[in-house]
Amino acid sequence: MVPRYWYNIVADLPEPLPPLIDPLDDEESRIALLVRILPSRLIDEEYTLSRLIPIPERIREAYARAGRPTPLLRAEGLERALGVSGRVRIYYKYEGALPTGSHKLNTALPQVYYALLDGAEEVATETGAGQWGLAVATAAAMLGVKATVFMTRSSYERKKPRRLAMQAMGATVYPSPSRVTEAGRRALEERPDHPGSLGLAITEAIEYVLGNPKRRYVAGSVMESVVTHQTVIGQEVLQQLPEEPDYMVACVGGGSNLAGFTYPAIGMRLRGEGFEKTRFVAAESAAAPRLTKGSYRYDGLDTGLVLPLARMYSLGKDYVPPPIHAAGLRYHGAAASLSLLRRLGLVEAVAYGQEEVFEAARIFARSEALLPAPESAHAIRAVIDIARRAPKGTVIAFNLSGHGLMDIDAYETLSSRIVEGRLPEPTGTRR
Amino acid sequence: MVPRYWYNIVADLPEPLPPLIDPLDDEESRIALLVRILPSRLIDEEYTLSRLIPIPERIREAYARAGRPTPLLRAEGLERALGVSGRVRIYYKYEGALPTGSHKLNTALPQVYYALLDGAEEVATETGAGQWGLAVATAAAMLGVKATVFMTRSSYERKKPRRLAMQAMGATVYPSPSRVTEAGRRALEERPDHPGSLGLAITEAIEYVLGNPKRRYVAGSVMESVVTHQTVIGQEVLQQLPEEPDYMVACVGGGSNLAGFTYPAIGMRLRGEGFEKTRFVAAESAAAPRLTKGSYRYDGLDTGLVLPLARMYSLGKDYVPPPIHAAGLRYHGAAASLSLLRRLGLVEAVAYGQEEVFEAARIFARSEALLPAPESAHAIRAVIDIARRAPKGTVIAFNLSGHGLMDIDAYETLSSRIVEGRLPEPTGTRR
Repeated sequence: MVPRYWYNIVADLPEPLPPLIDPLDDEESRIALLVRILPSRLIDEEYTLSRLIPIPERIREAYARAGRPTPLLRAEGLERALGVSGRVRIYYKYEGALPTGSHKLNTALPQVYYALLDGAEEVATETGAGQWGLAVATAAAMLGVKATVFMTRSSYERKKPRRLAMQAMGATVYPSPSRVTEAGRRALEERPDHPGSLGLAITEAIEYVLGNPKRRYVAGSVMESVVTHQTVIGQEVLQQLPEEPDYMVACVGGGSNLAGFTYPAIGMRLRGEGFEKTRFVAAESAAAPRLTKGSYRYDGLDTGLVLPLARMYSLGKDYVPPPIHAAGLRYHGAAASLSLLRRLGLVEAVAYGQEEVFEAARIFARSEALLPAPESAHAIRAVIDIARRAPKGTVIAFNLSGHGLMDIDAYETLSSRIVEGRLPEPTGTRR
Repeated sequence: MVPRYWYNIVADLPEPLPPLIDPLDDEESRIALLVRILPSRLIDEEYTLSRLIPIPERIREAYARAGRPTPLLRAEGLERALGVSGRVRIYYKYEGALPTGSHKLNTALPQVYYALLDGAEEVATETGAGQWGLAVATAAAMLGVKATVFMTRSSYERKKPRRLAMQAMGATVYPSPSRVTEAGRRALEERPDHPGSLGLAITEAIEYVLGNPKRRYVAGSVMESVVTHQTVIGQEVLQQLPEEPDYMVACVGGGSNLAGFTYPAIGMRLRGEGFEKTRFVAAESAAAPRLTKGSYRYDGLDTGLVLPLARMYSLGKDYVPPPIHAAGLRYHGAAASLSLLRRLGLVEAVAYGQEEVFEAARIFARSEALLPAPESAHAIRAVIDIARRAPKGTVIAFNLSGHGLMDIDAYETLSSRIVEGRLPEPTGTRR
C-alpha cells in the first residue's frame, strides 16, 4: 500500500528550524524570488508546521504506477560475502526499482503536479549527471506538462543515456551554459568552451522560468518540502521492516534520500515512540565532506546567490569539489533539517573516498546481483564497515537510492582500476 | 502472487510438435550434444508433455525478489495521444520492471538453478546486444554460480553499459571471436578484425562448456523449455487482465517473449475455455521477416549447425539481416511451437521497418513516460496501427518486453533522425 501521508520532521524537531533568509546585500529578495518561481503548493509545504501532509490522490496513483511501494530486501548475499551470516542481518530499501532508476521521481511527481495546479504549462530545472533531470522529464510526461532541463555541458556529452532518455520523453534539454538565457550567453562570451556548473545551470533555469508566467521551477533536493516528499520511502520502511534496526544508513548529496529514508523513524525517536537505540548514519563523499568537515552556519544554497541562504553544514558555497563519479554527492551543503539533526547529534556522519566506495560497489554487485549507483555505494561502504565489526545480533538497514546501470563511465573506471590497481584519491579546493 | 506453474503449450497443440532432429550429415549427433551441454532438468522440460510445470520454490522466491509479478498497466496516456480515448482500451505488461530491464531473467534464473542441481559450478552462453548476457550474469550472481559470456565483438564495444554491468556482477565476458576457443582462434587467424556473429559466439560457448564437465550451457530463446519459462508472464496476465482482449500483441525475436505473454491465453482458446475472439499478433522486424516472408521447414537453429534442426518459419540459417537497432529481432527463425501456431493460423504476423518503429517508440515514450526497448517498440507499432482503425470497445493488450534506457545508440539515432528526417530502410541479404 502506498502511504497516505508524507512526514514533516519540522513538527517534531527539538529546536525550531532556522529559516531561509536573504543575504545582506542590496539585491532583490531571494525569498520573494522563490515564491515567484516555485509552485505555490510547494511553498506552502516548505513553511508548514503540520506533521503529516496528505499525499494527493493523483500522486498516490502515480506512485503506485511507478512501482511504489518499492521493495525492502534482505541482503543475504552480502551477509555471506562479508562472512557475517547468522551474526548480522542487513536490509535495504531499493529505490532503483522506480522507472528512472533513482528516488528522484518521488518529489518530481508532486512538484510537476503542483505546477499544473498553478495553471503552469511548463516546468524547468537544472541537472548534473541527469538523475534529477530524467525524473522531471518522466514526471512531466506522466502528467502531460512540458519540461525544459538545463544540463551542465560536461554531463550533456558524458551522460548521454540520461540526456537521450529525457529527449525521447519529449523534454527539451539545453547544454548549460546555453544561448537561451542572458546568464548562459554571458558565460559563453567569457569562455566559449565553458564546461558548465550546477550553479550556472540553476541561474539559467530560474532566468528561463522568470521569462514566462506559465513556467515553474522545480527543485531536486535540499529544500524541506523536497525532503518531505522523499519520506514516502521511510513511511514504507516503517511498514516493511520486520525488526527495529541498530543502524539506518544512507548517502548524502543534498540530503533528500537520507532524510526520506530515516525521518519517519527519527520522528518516532523524537516523539519517544521507538527507535531509541537506532544510530542514523550519513555517508558522504570525502570529495565534498560537509557533514564531517564543514561548519554549521548560514551559507548560500547556490554559488550564484540566486537562491536564499540556509543555516546548514557547508564547505562554503564557492567550494569546488574534484570531479568524482558520484556527481550527486558533490554539493557543498546539506538540507537545513538534516544539518540541525547532525548538530544535535541525532545523525552521525562518515566520509569515504572513491576507491573504497567502488570496492564496496563491486562486493555488493557480485553478492546481491544489483549494480548500485555510485552515490548509493557510499552507503554500502558504511554498511560493510559497520557489519564487519558489529556484535552478534546487529541489524542494519540502508537505502539503495538508485541503480548504476546508466552510470557506464563510473563503472568503466571501476573495471580499469581493478585491472590497473589503486589510483590516488582526488581532493577538493576551497576558494 | 508469483504463479506456481509454467504453462507448456505442447500439451494442448492441435498437432504434435515436430521434434528437433539431427542434420543428415556424418557429424556427431547434435541432439546428443544438447543433452551433454544443457542442464539435465532443462532437457526434461524440453521434452515433457505435461501441461503445467511446477516452478521450483527457489525460483518463485527469486522471481518475487526480482519484482514479479510485474505490473499490467493501462496505457491511458497512449490512448489520449492516439485520440482513441473512450473508444479503445490498451493494456501492457511491463517486463522492463525486472532489474536487468527485460524479460530474459525469467528463464536465466531457472536455467542457472538447474545447472546448480547438476553440480555445475559455471554457466556459459553467448550474447549479442547483451540483454541475455546481462540476465545470465544477474541470475548467476543471485544464485552464486560463475558466469562466462561470449559477446559478439561489435557489441562488446558498442553495448558497453551491459558489458560493464555483467563484469561488475562478476561475470567473465569475452569478445567473440576470442582466443579462448579453437573456433575463436581460427576465426581470428582468418580475419584479425572479425566483428563476430551470434552463430560464432554460440559455437565458442559450446566449445567452452565441453572443455569442463562442471560447466553448463544456458539458452536465451527458441527452445521450448525456454519458451515455457517465459509463460510466467502470461500466467500473471491471466490473473491481472480486467477483461478479455480482442488483440494480444508482442514482438518476435526467437519467440520467447511473445510465447510467454500469449501461450497461457492461447492454451485456454485451444481447450475451449476462453479467448475465442482474441487475435494473437506477432510483430517482427522487416529486416528479419521470417513469420511474414520465411518458409515453414526444417532448418538449422544456428549458422554453424552446432545445434540440431527445428521445423520452423525460417529465412534460412545463412540469412544475414542488416544491422538494425533491435538486435534481439535479427534471428532467422522462430520457436517451433510458435511457428506451428502461425502455420495453423492461430498467430498472425506483421513486419515493420525501423523508421515506423522508432516513430512508435517516440509516441509511447512521450505519452507513457517509459522508454521502450527497440525490440518492444515493434509491438507498440502494431498496437498503434490496430488502435487507430479499431471499432469502439476494442481492447488491446501487449507485452513491453523491456525498457530502452541502456540502448543509447539506438535512441541517439532516433533523435538525430527526428532532426534530419527519414533515412532509407536497410534490407537483408539471402545467401
